[in-house]
Amino acid sequence: MNYGIIRKALGSILLLEAFFMLPSCFIGFYLNEPDKYPFLICIALTGVLGALMHYPKTNNKKIRIKEGFAIVTFGWVLISFFGALPYILSGSMSSFADAFFETVSGFTTTGATVIDNVEVLPKGLLFWRSFTHWIGGMGILVFMVALLPAMGVGGFQIFKAESPGPTSDRFVPRIKDTAKILYITYISMTALQIILLLLGGMSLFDSMLHTFGTVGTGGLSNKSLSIGAYDSTYIHMVISIFMILSGINFSLYYAIYKGRGKEVLKDEELRLYLIIISISTILIGLNLKISALQSAGVAFKDALFQVSSIITTTGYTTVDYDLWPAFSKAILFLLMFVGGCAGSTAGGVKTIRILVLLKTIKRKIMEIFHPRAVIPIKNGDEIVSDDTVSSISTFYALYIFIFLISTVIISLEGVNFESAASSVATTLGNVGPGFGFVGPRNTFSGYSPYSKMFFSFLMLLGRLELFTIMALLAPKTWKNEM
Amino acid sequence: MNYGIIRKALGSILLLEAFFMLPSCFIGFYLNEPDKYPFLICIALTGVLGALMHYPKTNNKKIRIKEGFAIVTFGWVLISFFGALPYILSGSMSSFADAFFETVSGFTTTGATVIDNVEVLPKGLLFWRSFTHWIGGMGILVFMVALLPAMGVGGFQIFKAESPGPTSDRFVPRIKDTAKILYITYISMTALQIILLLLGGMSLFDSMLHTFGTVGTGGLSNKSLSIGAYDSTYIHMVISIFMILSGINFSLYYAIYKGRGKEVLKDEELRLYLIIISISTILIGLNLKISALQSAGVAFKDALFQVSSIITTTGYTTVDYDLWPAFSKAILFLLMFVGGCAGSTAGGVKTIRILVLLKTIKRKIMEIFHPRAVIPIKNGDEIVSDDTVSSISTFYALYIFIFLISTVIISLEGVNFESAASSVATTLGNVGPGFGFVGPRNTFSGYSPYSKMFFSFLMLLGRLELFTIMALLAPKTWKNEM
Repeated sequence: MNYGIIRKALGSILLLEAFFMLPSCFIGFYLNEPDKYPFLICIALTGVLGALMHYPKTNNKKIRIKEGFAIVTFGWVLISFFGALPYILSGSMSSFADAFFETVSGFTTTGATVIDNVEVLPKGLLFWRSFTHWIGGMGILVFMVALLPAMGVGGFQIFKAESPGPTSDRFVPRIKDTAKILYITYISMTALQIILLLLGGMSLFDSMLHTFGTVGTGGLSNKSLSIGAYDSTYIHMVISIFMILSGINFSLYYAIYKGRGKEVLKDEELRLYLIIISISTILIGLNLKISALQSAGVAFKDALFQVSSIITTTGYTTVDYDLWPAFSKAILFLLMFVGGCAGSTAGGVKTIRILVLLKTIKRKIMEIFHPRAVIPIKNGDEIVSDDTVSSISTFYALYIFIFLISTVIISLEGVNFESAASSVATTLGNVGPGFGFVGPRNTFSGYSPYSKMFFSFLMLLGRLELFTIMALLAPKTWKNEM
Repeated sequence: MNYGIIRKALGSILLLEAFFMLPSCFIGFYLNEPDKYPFLICIALTGVLGALMHYPKTNNKKIRIKEGFAIVTFGWVLISFFGALPYILSGSMSSFADAFFETVSGFTTTGATVIDNVEVLPKGLLFWRSFTHWIGGMGILVFMVALLPAMGVGGFQIFKAESPGPTSDRFVPRIKDTAKILYITYISMTALQIILLLLGGMSLFDSMLHTFGTVGTGGLSNKSLSIGAYDSTYIHMVISIFMILSGINFSLYYAIYKGRGKEVLKDEELRLYLIIISISTILIGLNLKISALQSAGVAFKDALFQVSSIITTTGYTTVDYDLWPAFSKAILFLLMFVGGCAGSTAGGVKTIRILVLLKTIKRKIMEIFHPRAVIPIKNGDEIVSDDTVSSISTFYALYIFIFLISTVIISLEGVNFESAASSVATTLGNVGPGFGFVGPRNTFSGYSPYSKMFFSFLMLLGRLELFTIMALLAPKTWKNEM
């Protein structure tokens, strides 16, 4: 391990965090809220430590894969630790486990909360809480689109393979340019949604917070009733649409910008993603109309909102879906295991992996009768390498193993199976709310501090695509000969 | 498709079934039970149809893989259909869906039941019900050890690869000899367990029925309380041990018989299987002792029994484990996704697949840092081919997909998530009882006929290792050019 370069990189991440705390601090002073000095202290603390870590020189500037993993993982943990301080210092939270959980949930764009009465929090802190989503989403875009493919983790080689060549370059090859394009898209979407929400009569503060939660596919709200606090079909629809847009591979927006719209329509992951959203919305809509006797309009609007919210792993709610019929709930549970498209801010298994797995199953059935045939798996026109296919299968197996074993561990809390399983699925998949004990009208506050720390771990594990952290947990990683 | 040879083979299967109905008919006449004539009619019907199908000649005697699949799948459906007739004709059941479900549950060695008051059934029928487990177990042994490896389905190539060569031949190469060895082992185990249960004071009739349910890892009992009806630690322990023995790869018994006991001790699948049983028993035992305040002896005895019963997919119960603490229940739920060893009568995913998947995950973590290294996956001393690894990953992905989607479908019945998910897991994994609505003190009788037929489908799908049936569902299979 090259500890020098890790220190330097982590230092710059902390400096960035101190900078990102400025707006919250400003809001605190402007509105004279009790969190103004706490933010000032946190900025100073984070900034000074960041500078102390960043500025001393290091001779070895080599960043290998394992240093990359260490920087990403410890970076996420470190900003969550320092990001949790404002909750504690402002007196809004007394337990470190609570504050850490809330901040991890923010930065991983999960949206699960331990705050039962969110309306009483000072405004600067509320801004910070939602802003962590926005910052986290930014970090994830670069992590997923620029770093993971280069590292060959969990099947993201698909995007690596598509980088070179004149027709298939979804992205300008260099990471910096890629990041720039991603950020311009991300910021444009943010600006557009804020404007549209303002037009719907939402206050500027609320519009900003809910936009951070939408484009980051986070889901934290400054209302206990989440989006249900706004009795406006327009607002529900705007957020539905922006959740769906935020779950799409961001490179497709670049393709549209470059005039390659046809390519976008042919994108198989996008198609599957939209098909799953459509079918799920129709099934839940019908179920709500028939079983819950709602009008068709309300049923399909609520169905679309909740389907978009869960598949993109956002986690906003307009109604208490925990009261929905079992069939609708089961579909939502299933969607927690799908997730949005790769290259978006969404979590979960990701649609591209589901797509490749479905193709693998189809191939295996064909191979039974043609044992000697070599049948390639394609994504669009490109062949997906065996190595990528095996990465994806392995990722999926590990995801399910972690889900099952974590459910057993959480059952120690004595909650019922539905609650335990959905608590794990919703944190590992970075969704937010679950069912029962952690349903949309409840929070994670009922869990013990041990479980809250465990859920924080699951959120990070899911967000960093499992293998980033699993690799760091392997003892071999820390031996110098590697 | 070569329909002639399929007809001939299915005919001989029906003739065999008619023969297997004789003991039940004999019991009916001997005890003068109301089911004596129904059995006589069924034997005549099944036998005559079997003869009509079997004896006409066919010119084309070629059995390709797809004919093999068709024979196995339709064979299982056909014997379930004719095996269901005694329930109807004796007047014990009025619904065909019920009778079919019960017979599929028997032949697939699942052990799920729709009969709420089993004690009132005539004796011949009770014998038949448990005997279907024993016959099914026999069929599965040959299917899994002799047919699947040759067909290359779902990762069973592992055993194919081990067949040739002087040291690693677990089995005499030819299928007939293999079958003979399997049957001798199976029959010896059956005889031994009947004797041991008789020594424990169980009646001959009950001993036979519960032995059929144990060695076939079935789980149907002629007592509503299952093994809980016998207040004897000795009987509980005998059945626990025989369930564990029935979940072990039968080829290992042959290895012991041939004096290769060392090889058995080194078998990685067996080791993992025993480790999972031990850890699960200890965790549940501790949980029961601490949370449910039971004495250590009772806690660990009950834990061992239930762990053995679920992991081997038998499904017998001594207590109502649905009342156990959430942690113990979650472990049992997890075990439904493990299953026994390949080459046994047990269902589920199978321990060997879990073993290979765990090794694949470990390899993937190592590959992150050594992207160019070729790290083989081994089972014992033998390298598992990439093709086999991919078969196993694909099987697992398909298994989880089917589980999730089926849970959504069953949720249409309005049962809660725990009930729906465990109903699917327990039928797809050929376990038997589940939780909640289908807990050990309940049956599947509360489900609609549609769901009962769907569960019958899931039992067959799980029993035939998914791909056998999936391949038949592909339209291409039925085109003549293949």
